[in-house]
Amino acid sequence: MPVNFTPGPSQLYFTVEGHARKAFREGVPSLSHRSAAFEKIYGHATEGLKALLQLPAGFQILFAASATEIWERSIQNLVAESSLHFVNGSFSKRYFEIATQLGKHALKTEVPAGQGFAPYTPAASPELIALTHNETSTGVALPLDFIHAFRNHHPEALVVVDAVSSLPYPKFDFDKIDSLFFSVQKAFGLPAGLGVWIVNEKCIARAEHLQSKGLPIGTYHNLPTLVANSKKNQTPETPNVLSIYLLAQVVEDFNKKGVEAIRKETDYKAALLYHTLQKHPIVKPFVTEARVQSQTVLVAHTGTATAEISKFLIQHGLQPGDGYGENKKTQLRFANFPTHSKETYELLVDLLEKYEPAN
Amino acid sequence: MPVNFTPGPSQLYFTVEGHARKAFREGVPSLSHRSAAFEKIYGHATEGLKALLQLPAGFQILFAASATEIWERSIQNLVAESSLHFVNGSFSKRYFEIATQLGKHALKTEVPAGQGFAPYTPAASPELIALTHNETSTGVALPLDFIHAFRNHHPEALVVVDAVSSLPYPKFDFDKIDSLFFSVQKAFGLPAGLGVWIVNEKCIARAEHLQSKGLPIGTYHNLPTLVANSKKNQTPETPNVLSIYLLAQVVEDFNKKGVEAIRKETDYKAALLYHTLQKHPIVKPFVTEARVQSQTVLVAHTGTATAEISKFLIQHGLQPGDGYGENKKTQLRFANFPTHSKETYELLVDLLEKYEPAN
Repeated sequence: MPVNFTPGPSQLYFTVEGHARKAFREGVPSLSHRSAAFEKIYGHATEGLKALLQLPAGFQILFAASATEIWERSIQNLVAESSLHFVNGSFSKRYFEIATQLGKHALKTEVPAGQGFAPYTPAASPELIALTHNETSTGVALPLDFIHAFRNHHPEALVVVDAVSSLPYPKFDFDKIDSLFFSVQKAFGLPAGLGVWIVNEKCIARAEHLQSKGLPIGTYHNLPTLVANSKKNQTPETPNVLSIYLLAQVVEDFNKKGVEAIRKETDYKAALLYHTLQKHPIVKPFVTEARVQSQTVLVAHTGTATAEISKFLIQHGLQPGDGYGENKKTQLRFANFPTHSKETYELLVDLLEKYEPAN
Repeated sequence: MPVNFTPGPSQLYFTVEGHARKAFREGVPSLSHRSAAFEKIYGHATEGLKALLQLPAGFQILFAASATEIWERSIQNLVAESSLHFVNGSFSKRYFEIATQLGKHALKTEVPAGQGFAPYTPAASPELIALTHNETSTGVALPLDFIHAFRNHHPEALVVVDAVSSLPYPKFDFDKIDSLFFSVQKAFGLPAGLGVWIVNEKCIARAEHLQSKGLPIGTYHNLPTLVANSKKNQTPETPNVLSIYLLAQVVEDFNKKGVEAIRKETDYKAALLYHTLQKHPIVKPFVTEARVQSQTVLVAHTGTATAEISKFLIQHGLQPGDGYGENKKTQLRFANFPTHSKETYELLVDLLEKYEPAN
């Protein structure tokens, strides 16, 4: 099979199939979620993640079914009235829409696809700031200092970061962030079916406050219930046990490699591809402002040559990701995740450099 | 490993590990949920289920993360004000509690654990009747005619059946039922992480009506959104693709065997164990009224001999399920699912008959 650069579901991390085989051998898929064996797996996953992300004490790691679920649960549990969303693509927009659907007064600051945001000047006083660190649809990443500045702008607001297609790459300052989430089928290279939601004590207190006022914060997956179960290394419902097991294993693999090594490799591979796109006669980076170019999802403007370049790469064993939505015919996306080796990226840029239009 | 009789997560159906290996070989875990290949898997699963359950036209099959999620979504989408719950154990009680948590006027008819319900006399006019066909915590199954009678009692109400630990065994009359759900880690013998929700057009119309009145029916997993996606063989979010694939495969295996053969085997195995419990000097059926004895989760009252009997069975390669909750020390539960062979059940009753107390 070709190496797959689709940004998600991603090509599996190379150790996953072996871990899955071991899981079946050890009876993991039929473990009771109330057993000590499951609690151990839960702890293995969350302790590993705490180490990998260098999470300070006071943060809880919770499991949902998808990042989409966490869009809903985070608004439901953390917002009584108003949230402020930074929208620059399809996924940040969907988060905003979910807040609107839940009847919240959702505000947005919107810029065209492919662009970053101008420095922020506080206007309203929202309860929650929703920031999509890496807009998977366009390849724009928010600079970390942009994200970290909201604590000063709005000391009372909760800062919530959608880091779906960037973790474990970004090195967030957890003093400046209250909640963070991702789904496992992106940079962790796992089968889809699990969302990971990280919250601090301010989030938990906010949900409890909303609950005490009689606001609807959901049932089995409201924050107090998730947290109470998480403290026992359990989940409220029968979860995707196999997926939590696989996450624990891959996080252990990442920790053995070291998050700094992963970050350095990511930087190296991104620099390689951006450099090639910058000087390429036909293919260009879609995101032109270097400050907001994503290191984990790189989007190339391939224009009328899209189908031909795609075919050329596939012939050489590399499957590019399609452009998102309406850009399917003019862009190609390249995930730069831990599963994508330096050698694969070197082959990719070689091929792009060698590519010549048919006519 | 011993044969596991825990009613869920169940021992895997014997074909699952092979199907999982094939899934990895074919790249299923990293398939895009917007690809034609995924749509084919979705269709394979839903068409197979329609055949297995003999579902009439007009029913839609939808995927959620768990039956617990469907408890929440069904109340949220189908009830404006009031639901009526038949409570006779921990799971039917939890469904009732979720309705209460969602701010609905939830009514209940409650009987002690291990008992069925007296014939129903209509009193209030609820919008939804919630019936737990098989109470996994106690081994009580509602007789089908009890379930089917609600259409006459309340022609306007939606009849919703939690069939978590009984499907595909019960042969429901789908003219008398509006919605049905189960989770795959019970009788389908699959890894946990997927709930299956079946709804008819009355349910869809009800959700649309609630939505048009501005009632909160949720966001990405509200019924209209789930149905719109399902009609394209898609899901709103990135789902547990691997699990949908495995479900499709196991349903195909079940269809090859034939649902009638599965039902007959289930009846045979249940009769064997109930017969043994009935005449046993020490172990007795916990549910004494034959009319409501579950065929798929059989609960034995083992009293002070519980630990000793459990140990004896494990020594002979059979792992009984613990009693639920406070009955852990006095009961054992035996799942009777398609993965449990006739030979295994014959061994189980032989062992129970041979068992002699240590003193």
